[in-house]
Amino acid sequence: MEKNQKKVVLAYSGGLDTSVILKWLENTYGYEVIAVCVNVGQKEDFSILKKKALESGASKVYVVNVQDEFVKDYIFPTLKAGGIYENDYLLGTCFARPLISKVLVDIAEEEGAVAIAHGATGKGNDQVRFETSVKALNPTLKLIAPWRIWDLKSREDCIEYAVEHKIPIEATKEKIYSRDENLWHISHEGGELEDPWNEHSKEVYLWCNAPEEAPDQSETVEITFEKGIPVKIGSKDYDGVELIKTLNKIGGKHGVGILDMVENRLVGMKSRGVYETPGGTILYEAHKALEKLTLDKAMISYKNDIAKKYGELLYDGLWFTPLKQSLDSFVDCSQEAVSGTVKMKLYKGSVKALGTKSKNSLYREDFATFGADEVYNQKDAEGFINLHALPLTIQGLKNMEKKQPKGSKEKQGSFAVL
Amino acid sequence: MEKNQKKVVLAYSGGLDTSVILKWLENTYGYEVIAVCVNVGQKEDFSILKKKALESGASKVYVVNVQDEFVKDYIFPTLKAGGIYENDYLLGTCFARPLISKVLVDIAEEEGAVAIAHGATGKGNDQVRFETSVKALNPTLKLIAPWRIWDLKSREDCIEYAVEHKIPIEATKEKIYSRDENLWHISHEGGELEDPWNEHSKEVYLWCNAPEEAPDQSETVEITFEKGIPVKIGSKDYDGVELIKTLNKIGGKHGVGILDMVENRLVGMKSRGVYETPGGTILYEAHKALEKLTLDKAMISYKNDIAKKYGELLYDGLWFTPLKQSLDSFVDCSQEAVSGTVKMKLYKGSVKALGTKSKNSLYREDFATFGADEVYNQKDAEGFINLHALPLTIQGLKNMEKKQPKGSKEKQGSFAVL
Amino acid sequence: MEKNQKKVVLAYSGGLDTSVILKWLENTYGYEVIAVCVNVGQKEDFSILKKKALESGASKVYVVNVQDEFVKDYIFPTLKAGGIYENDYLLGTCFARPLISKVLVDIAEEEGAVAIAHGATGKGNDQVRFETSVKALNPTLKLIAPWRIWDLKSREDCIEYAVEHKIPIEATKEKIYSRDENLWHISHEGGELEDPWNEHSKEVYLWCNAPEEAPDQSETVEITFEKGIPVKIGSKDYDGVELIKTLNKIGGKHGVGILDMVENRLVGMKSRGVYETPGGTILYEAHKALEKLTLDKAMISYKNDIAKKYGELLYDGLWFTPLKQSLDSFVDCSQEAVSGTVKMKLYKGSVKALGTKSKNSLYREDFATFGADEVYNQKDAEGFINLHALPLTIQGLKNMEKKQPKGSKEKQGSFAVL
Amino acid sequence: MEKNQKKVVLAYSGGLDTSVILKWLENTYGYEVIAVCVNVGQKEDFSILKKKALESGASKVYVVNVQDEFVKDYIFPTLKAGGIYENDYLLGTCFARPLISKVLVDIAEEEGAVAIAHGATGKGNDQVRFETSVKALNPTLKLIAPWRIWDLKSREDCIEYAVEHKIPIEATKEKIYSRDENLWHISHEGGELEDPWNEHSKEVYLWCNAPEEAPDQSETVEITFEKGIPVKIGSKDYDGVELIKTLNKIGGKHGVGILDMVENRLVGMKSRGVYETPGGTILYEAHKALEKLTLDKAMISYKNDIAKKYGELLYDGLWFTPLKQSLDSFVDCSQEAVSGTVKMKLYKGSVKALGTKSKNSLYREDFATFGADEVYNQKDAEGFINLHALPLTIQGLKNMEKKQPKGSKEKQGSFAVL
Repeated sequence: MEKNQKKVVLAYSGGLDTSVILKWLENTYGYEVIAVCVNVGQKEDFSILKKKALESGASKVYVVNVQDEFVKDYIFPTLKAGGIYENDYLLGTCFARPLISKVLVDIAEEEGAVAIAHGATGKGNDQVRFETSVKALNPTLKLIAPWRIWDLKSREDCIEYAVEHKIPIEATKEKIYSRDENLWHISHEGGELEDPWNEHSKEVYLWCNAPEEAPDQSETVEITFEKGIPVKIGSKDYDGVELIKTLNKIGGKHGVGILDMVENRLVGMKSRGVYETPGGTILYEAHKALEKLTLDKAMISYKNDIAKKYGELLYDGLWFTPLKQSLDSFVDCSQEAVSGTVKMKLYKGSVKALGTKSKNSLYREDFATFGADEVYNQKDAEGFINLHALPLTIQGLKNMEKKQPKGSKEKQGSFAVL
Repeated sequence: MEKNQKKVVLAYSGGLDTSVILKWLENTYGYEVIAVCVNVGQKEDFSILKKKALESGASKVYVVNVQDEFVKDYIFPTLKAGGIYENDYLLGTCFARPLISKVLVDIAEEEGAVAIAHGATGKGNDQVRFETSVKALNPTLKLIAPWRIWDLKSREDCIEYAVEHKIPIEATKEKIYSRDENLWHISHEGGELEDPWNEHSKEVYLWCNAPEEAPDQSETVEITFEKGIPVKIGSKDYDGVELIKTLNKIGGKHGVGILDMVENRLVGMKSRGVYETPGGTILYEAHKALEKLTLDKAMISYKNDIAKKYGELLYDGLWFTPLKQSLDSFVDCSQEAVSGTVKMKLYKGSVKALGTKSKNSLYREDFATFGADEVYNQKDAEGFINLHALPLTIQGLKNMEKKQPKGSKEKQGSFAVL
Repeated sequence: MEKNQKKVVLAYSGGLDTSVILKWLENTYGYEVIAVCVNVGQKEDFSILKKKALESGASKVYVVNVQDEFVKDYIFPTLKAGGIYENDYLLGTCFARPLISKVLVDIAEEEGAVAIAHGATGKGNDQVRFETSVKALNPTLKLIAPWRIWDLKSREDCIEYAVEHKIPIEATKEKIYSRDENLWHISHEGGELEDPWNEHSKEVYLWCNAPEEAPDQSETVEITFEKGIPVKIGSKDYDGVELIKTLNKIGGKHGVGILDMVENRLVGMKSRGVYETPGGTILYEAHKALEKLTLDKAMISYKNDIAKKYGELLYDGLWFTPLKQSLDSFVDCSQEAVSGTVKMKLYKGSVKALGTKSKNSLYREDFATFGADEVYNQKDAEGFINLHALPLTIQGLKNMEKKQPKGSKEKQGSFAVL
Repeated sequence: MEKNQKKVVLAYSGGLDTSVILKWLENTYGYEVIAVCVNVGQKEDFSILKKKALESGASKVYVVNVQDEFVKDYIFPTLKAGGIYENDYLLGTCFARPLISKVLVDIAEEEGAVAIAHGATGKGNDQVRFETSVKALNPTLKLIAPWRIWDLKSREDCIEYAVEHKIPIEATKEKIYSRDENLWHISHEGGELEDPWNEHSKEVYLWCNAPEEAPDQSETVEITFEKGIPVKIGSKDYDGVELIKTLNKIGGKHGVGILDMVENRLVGMKSRGVYETPGGTILYEAHKALEKLTLDKAMISYKNDIAKKYGELLYDGLWFTPLKQSLDSFVDCSQEAVSGTVKMKLYKGSVKALGTKSKNSLYREDFATFGADEVYNQKDAEGFINLHALPLTIQGLKNMEKKQPKGSKEKQGSFAVL
């Protein structure tokens, strides 16, 4: 099928699916397939991956390490925003997809490819995130999602296709869970998780100790932030990638950051996943504690709205949108004062802030303590309460009027012994 | 000072402060003082309290047990709303104040009293909550907050006043922490907590084991809800008060529900508190997990906004307001489907949902799993993505146009290979 | 094609499109077609419509007058909510679709039909609103949207099909605008509106005088509401349908309620429409004015959020959802006090509230006027401001500290001359 | 009283109140009074004002023209945000107060003054806005609000004080309305407005023709924006101050921008005001229309939330806060695409956008029109609807199940004929 020399760029993971897709793209469309492995921190031997892709028929393989960009432009902005989905999920898969898509589009444009293909299924969120991102960056590129097109219905079908087309696959035992891994987290779906009444088994964990198997001794970690970005562990400076890796190790040891939740997918159904986000969980908790020390009441309240919206945008694949950019502008401005140090304690599956300090602290012991005060005049409280409660007072007077016998109605003023 | 026979109703706790206030009201205004102890679940011997109040000069003492009302009309509505303040605080003190105020107003009206007095300081939130509530219920009642008026500045001043006026006080050792206790929680402020960098000491705990001292064996509890209200533990029915007490015991044993946070008081300053809410924390986590199974994406998202607002209203003393009532109407309607059972695991300071089941579950394995499907057509996803992403596509086309050389601008249509 | 005796229910309007669809359904699927005309207040001769449907091949025709239900369960709840889309659009088409769908489903179930068909195009919002509503009410019914399926691409194609299949159509002149009419509004799209820079022509109006052609004399109308529902014009009681019709007439005469806007469709593109909503616009303005008199600051603020959400849900076809129901519960509760009378002035295209009165008014002249006061103590304001501004004060102190030379930093307290 | 040589800075307007305050500050505290007139566009002869202040006893008079800063840093940011209070009020007084306060603080710091005084009453919002702003900028300055302190209770008391202390005041007739004027608007309170059922009289207008007296001929104005900022009227460039003045003139002629509303003051009571904002109203409408052309659905929705919050912050005197700054960052980013031209029609009290155009328009006729299409595939809509409606489908299936007899419950799958 040498006739069609058009190129397609494939998001290649080295697994069974994308290996089969690689060949299938060639077989089906006659495309020249360029495999792209984007390194966002997943634990892979990329040289093996490269070899495999070529053996599966790729005309070219790119391996692109974008971990630094991932941390700087995707993870840390989200951390600063406090972005979260349905109160719990720290968005690990969500913010990797737009970056991977950006790499795919860049290579497609450089290579003059006409299409981009990926191995995400037709039931999940990731197909949406890949495709919205590509459309935002280059809507002239065609998108191919084989799982929505071909006749293969299962892992078994894929293996059969691979054998038939001499695609090199490993003699793997059955995969129980569907997983996604990057620097920030590893997610798990499938297996016993598919019944929400089932307890997840400890076998699901790849990064974390089960809390019961974590050390009996708690561990304390001090993390220092500058304008919302973590820069130190203890007294040692870290670049972003190393900082997250280090916290993943410490957190994983103590079983921190395991989340098991039923969530609402963008495509309208519920699913259940287990997420391990040890370093991320520590960072979110620490960042939140520092914000409590350095942001005022109005900001904390409003920023919580932003955090929710941010999480929903990311979850729904809307990274490359004007709204997302504007939210980032808000967040960056809000983080001016979020510098300081948080002492975190890790123990048997939980992480808690023990103490916080900051040169921008808005906590003032002289205001807050209940002793004799010079700086705060307690008498102010009376006036404050009287006006804070004035709408209730007026409503209360109205309610009393209504309970009064008719004749006394004129004496409205007489209630008002405020 | 028999001249003034006007009556004042005092929220009496039996502690040093309100004992002194009792006498001070009499000495200062010549009021007849009616002491009211509202039992919202705090651990007190109310017969001793009663005796003490009379010895301190109260003309009458009411002890009113409102625990059932507290659970039914205050705690459970808040649980259903998911009401929370600054992401973490479960509002234990906030929702007790309006109920106590309601009791005070009822008695004041029955007794023909002209004023209500309380022992909250001029720096805190509770003065606001008491007074807004009284103003909402009966704005003609005068409010007296001695801590904002008198010259006593400290515990020592109070003791001196007590000795001078022969008020019976216990020879207590120095109180380190300022505390508030009811069925739902116990809070702690002061002492080493006043420096936010200090780790709180284990001595602060009154209800909970420190996580390190909790049992090495985890414990699993199944809680059943009906329309958002917890009704069973395991297979046993509980009324609300007993259910919370039981969960407090189990949760406390495992060190669950300890919160240490810097918060923004309504009166404009930050303070730091430690809260123990063992049963409440278990209930919030369980309720949230059940909602994830039974509510859809749009509802979960919007209800999170409601939960935040609800928490802010309660924290700010705005219980008796039309907005609070309307939020309750929303919440009640939202809970129609929130029936089912949640399996919770308690271990060393943390609580997690292991599994959920409900006859109203919106989770459908046949939709969510990645196998061959009959009910969900994966091809639908393409159309969905194309339209979900259409704004991004149009923006993307616009962005590409701008990068084009001038002359090619007319060919707008030609990009649109969607 | 007598073989297939399955029935389909068609939303039949009597226009060219649905006449062609009627026959096409029969020709294509061999369905027995049941035509349903739902009377939501559009100006039609339904007996002609009935005849036409039968002549076009319908096995049965239903004409269902649901105007009362439309007002009671769809229009007034939305009015009470203040539901609005993108700040301006009063949702006239949006809330008719779910009711029409409900009628279609009811008849389909009664008739044992297997499918529902409609004439909405594949580019608009209405297909979504019809289909989401049907799916919510009976997801087992098949949905047929011929415009998304068949090969006919234009009005001309339809006419050709009609001629070929002997479908009785009127010899109409070319339709410039695409319209939707019901009791609440009439909408217009197409024609010169398709270029957003074009001014819309006066020829578009069917209900309203152009403001320039409206009477030179203004007109005043008093509308009385009970719990958010309009019940009187002047001193005369009206049932809902007649009240809206009457206000449409008065408003239309004065050119009130013409809206010309570019909006974002749910399906991802922008479109432009002109809407005439004379009665509705009067009612919205009057209702808003009455709420300003009877609701407090916190409620008005929050209810604005609700109004926006309500508008988005309706626009997006999400009427039959738990969230919509819960919003209604909120709104119903919020309207307890919204009773009273509003005096509206109509003049040359605009409508304004001149005055409002209510037995539940929260406006108190004695509080608001700037004369000598007995009921409001101006001195309270100082305390209020001091605490309202305390976060700004603390931030201000912090900012000043930072500008200070290093050595003076310890003297933090000395700034605090509050 | 030469002993106290401390200085106070007074916000001086030249009216009766501040003339009396000037002398009263001297008499009461022995302060040296520095009068500051801040020119934010009010129509005054500032040389007369200056003379009057000196004659009233000021030791020094500053007249500071900050109109450019007012437009650039206060008005246009608010216009870009769409800031609005309680759906209608365009914030004219709100955003002038922080700027005036800033000038006062700057002069106080330069002069070494210890206090700032203003003439706002103890019942209104302006006292709050002045004082929060001063506290934010320099919390060490003392604030003096004579209306909350002195014994003068009325205009008559002031006149008496003036006569007694030989303060030069004009022999003015009685003032009916309390007014505030600047470049953006003029507000009116008092008089017949104090009964919300009264229609306001035409005599209240100072800037606008009554709609009935406006020209019979409508007028069309084209306004061009760059990144949200208006820069041209017709083809002529304008700087901000002149642009607003010009639009005030045109708008005033046509009676545009008259608002009569009952509002909720920050201090807890309702008041009623009439506002004339002719230029501002034109600009808000034009800006909104342009945003509808250039912003996508998600942005328009979210920006409406921002607009409401922005309005509340400004109304409540919270200009100099981190939250306000962060909202500005959001808004600035959101305005990147808001460039283009809007054609506005003014007629008899109303203003409407006739047409909009922009190089960043997201409106695409090829997507929106209902003809044959090449760029948008109508078949996509089916998939979109199926997934958009999937939560409703699942809920619908669940509802049907519940209606089924018990025995059929197992056949869950059989409903799912999607």
